[in-house]
Amino acid sequence: MRGSSEAFRFLDKEISLCYFLSILERKKARMEKKTFGVGLFGLGTVGGGVAELLLNENWKSKDYEFVLKKVAVRHLNKRRSISLPSRLLTTNPREVLEDPEIDTVIEVMGGISPAKEIIIEALRKGKNVITANKALLARSGSLIFKEATENNCYLGVRASNIASYRLIESLAYSPSKIEELIGIFNGTCNYILTEMERRGESFSNVLKKAQEIGYTEKDPSDDIDGYDTAHKLVVLLGLTSGHFLPLESLFVEGIRKITLQDILFAKELGYRIKLVAIARRKGEELEARVHPALLPIGRGLARLDGIENGIEIRDETGVEVGLQAPGAGRYPTATAILEDLVCMAEGRKLVSPYQREHLTLKKMEEVETRYYLRFNALDQAGVLAKISGILGSYNISIKAVLQKGERESERSEFVPVIMLTHKAREKDVQNAIRKINSLSVIKGETLLIRVEEGIF
Amino acid sequence: MRGSSEAFRFLDKEISLCYFLSILERKKARMEKKTFGVGLFGLGTVGGGVAELLLNENWKSKDYEFVLKKVAVRHLNKRRSISLPSRLLTTNPREVLEDPEIDTVIEVMGGISPAKEIIIEALRKGKNVITANKALLARSGSLIFKEATENNCYLGVRASNIASYRLIESLAYSPSKIEELIGIFNGTCNYILTEMERRGESFSNVLKKAQEIGYTEKDPSDDIDGYDTAHKLVVLLGLTSGHFLPLESLFVEGIRKITLQDILFAKELGYRIKLVAIARRKGEELEARVHPALLPIGRGLARLDGIENGIEIRDETGVEVGLQAPGAGRYPTATAILEDLVCMAEGRKLVSPYQREHLTLKKMEEVETRYYLRFNALDQAGVLAKISGILGSYNISIKAVLQKGERESERSEFVPVIMLTHKAREKDVQNAIRKINSLSVIKGETLLIRVEEGIF
Repeated sequence: MRGSSEAFRFLDKEISLCYFLSILERKKARMEKKTFGVGLFGLGTVGGGVAELLLNENWKSKDYEFVLKKVAVRHLNKRRSISLPSRLLTTNPREVLEDPEIDTVIEVMGGISPAKEIIIEALRKGKNVITANKALLARSGSLIFKEATENNCYLGVRASNIASYRLIESLAYSPSKIEELIGIFNGTCNYILTEMERRGESFSNVLKKAQEIGYTEKDPSDDIDGYDTAHKLVVLLGLTSGHFLPLESLFVEGIRKITLQDILFAKELGYRIKLVAIARRKGEELEARVHPALLPIGRGLARLDGIENGIEIRDETGVEVGLQAPGAGRYPTATAILEDLVCMAEGRKLVSPYQREHLTLKKMEEVETRYYLRFNALDQAGVLAKISGILGSYNISIKAVLQKGERESERSEFVPVIMLTHKAREKDVQNAIRKINSLSVIKGETLLIRVEEGIF
Repeated sequence: MRGSSEAFRFLDKEISLCYFLSILERKKARMEKKTFGVGLFGLGTVGGGVAELLLNENWKSKDYEFVLKKVAVRHLNKRRSISLPSRLLTTNPREVLEDPEIDTVIEVMGGISPAKEIIIEALRKGKNVITANKALLARSGSLIFKEATENNCYLGVRASNIASYRLIESLAYSPSKIEELIGIFNGTCNYILTEMERRGESFSNVLKKAQEIGYTEKDPSDDIDGYDTAHKLVVLLGLTSGHFLPLESLFVEGIRKITLQDILFAKELGYRIKLVAIARRKGEELEARVHPALLPIGRGLARLDGIENGIEIRDETGVEVGLQAPGAGRYPTATAILEDLVCMAEGRKLVSPYQREHLTLKKMEEVETRYYLRFNALDQAGVLAKISGILGSYNISIKAVLQKGERESERSEFVPVIMLTHKAREKDVQNAIRKINSLSVIKGETLLIRVEEGIF
């Protein structure tokens, strides 16, 4: 007994000394600048911006120093917006991953592979990781966050959703759960829809222009088919709830089917068409979907023009917040990455300390909302009655009808008939449309766009 | 030598053990729930909300427990929205300050004294402090932050500016300095100005209604004279730059002088009148001011109705962010305080790690902006020429003139003449107005309202 109590007394002394030393250590750390060795993957628009900020004296913090040690690129001699000393450049990722002086890896190369392998390996080697890769985070967010936690590394993802990152921390740390969220997360789609309205041009003409001025990739499908928006929604919900939804479980619809005609009809009815991400919680059920929607003109997100992005949130106490922000771009993304560096240096973690319950994802067919329907109908008596009869049989009631005398062409006898419905169930609407489409007085597919109110 | 090197070896062992123990300690801390004893000062709208959230199981975090130990109130038997066990209530502040189980003090009693003494004493006793008291922070922010730092305490101030707190951390941690900021920080003023326009009523009638429905204090001067807005601006600039401007150094003007007439004239010219806080940096000079301003209709802050608040920010890289948020209220404020509790428990600090340069405050008379001027002028030929002649002699050029045939009363020969100027220097405008006011063709004081563009 005595022996053991002496051992404890010894331990006590050790602990006091240890405590004293740790205070000294902390005091010392405060007086010295902490230095971090940074390795960068990718030197495109964003990577170039990050390198520029890291090399610029203006951006230095008083407490930390971030030293750019190495940049991995695909081609050494490509023309770039920034010229770096050639000793910094390498085409070999291993030179970054295996450099013991590099404790922090910034991944802005994009794509799933090899970005994923690079991030996982960096984390397993104990390096902090900062990434802008929403496509990867949406697919492998759970795994990547697990690796970061297990290896006690900082994982910075602010740059993956510029539209909302300035709210993410506050949302993650708020005791109050999100009840409803609606966002415009894709600048390309918002630009295309805005320009169609402004210039009275077709989707394909405006898309071509967007490609010419570099507002979208050569293959624009990620943007215009809604996947980029869906990636950002999955990451946002993952960060604020701790649960990353499987990407495939989300309902995702893009803007390819939206015609200039629909934009003008919507305007006449008091709406603008936007590509939105929506999450809504009711009890233990969660709706999460991405699709074009009619939003009331002059309110909230409907006011966002061109490449602007925004988000509106209501929490369970009824507190509402709306944020308007750039969606992407060199400096918005590069400064988000720098902010991650500083938060990393401060020892922060971007994970909610709240254990949010795991919600069940509501099936899309059970979702209830309002609908804009555009039928291509024969211009003759009794057609409206037929359509509304079928809608009625599925419990879908009509709020407004807009029938335009404009036939598709001189020889066509078909005219667009627009109906706005009251709230209805997706499944009923889909079934009703299928039935209506099979009528002989209807030509082609009926277009359906959902109608949302937004929060502000 | 050998002795000292052995001592070092001994120290080495101690450090390894110490390191090992500290890891154990941290692991243990992670597994256990950290408990914080909370003392609350004030049990009004906000205090009641905080108590409700603290006592409600819904709001518990998985890592922390916040236990409400004591609530200091002025009157024990007042009717309140929340009924607490009487053992929790006390009228003696000392019972909170001297309770060793209370490590965290939440001050939502308002007023300068005794709130200031309570906060300083709590910090000196090593207690963390969370406060919503913008008036106090605007006056004594430097001192209070200094005490918090010296005593190694957490100081939470999110609740002092609900309109902007969700951006404060991001702004404080962003490497990029704020270049321009414009905000609507006072719900009462925004409500009054919105209702005057909507209902076509006078300032004093709408103020009376605001007082009846509890949107403003019995003595509304802090709100309508602009001081509440100025407090919030001082705190916001203090948090993001580290420098608290002396409140007296700010130019502050309220909304008492705004008439319904001005609101309607402004509308005709394409503007809405709002009470705004403005900060703008040019080189090493800072403009910081609070006053009513004409903002372009349909854009940015001009769209905020009723008690809504908002802020727009542009940083030095040109990144623009706009936030729309509630300005006050039970739940917005109480959840902001809970968020502070969680950040405190996480060991965060809300102070910028960037050493922002100390800027010189630009004198108001040197500020350049555009102006709306309302002269009360004799309805006769040559008057416009006289006014514009004087303006011209001070280098003030006129952009638009609006002359209404509406005389002040049937017998009056005076009519309002409105002029919008191009950019001019405040000093020149003040001097010109003084000269114009002394003309015999002018009756009474000329009203001056500044015109701002906003960011969005």
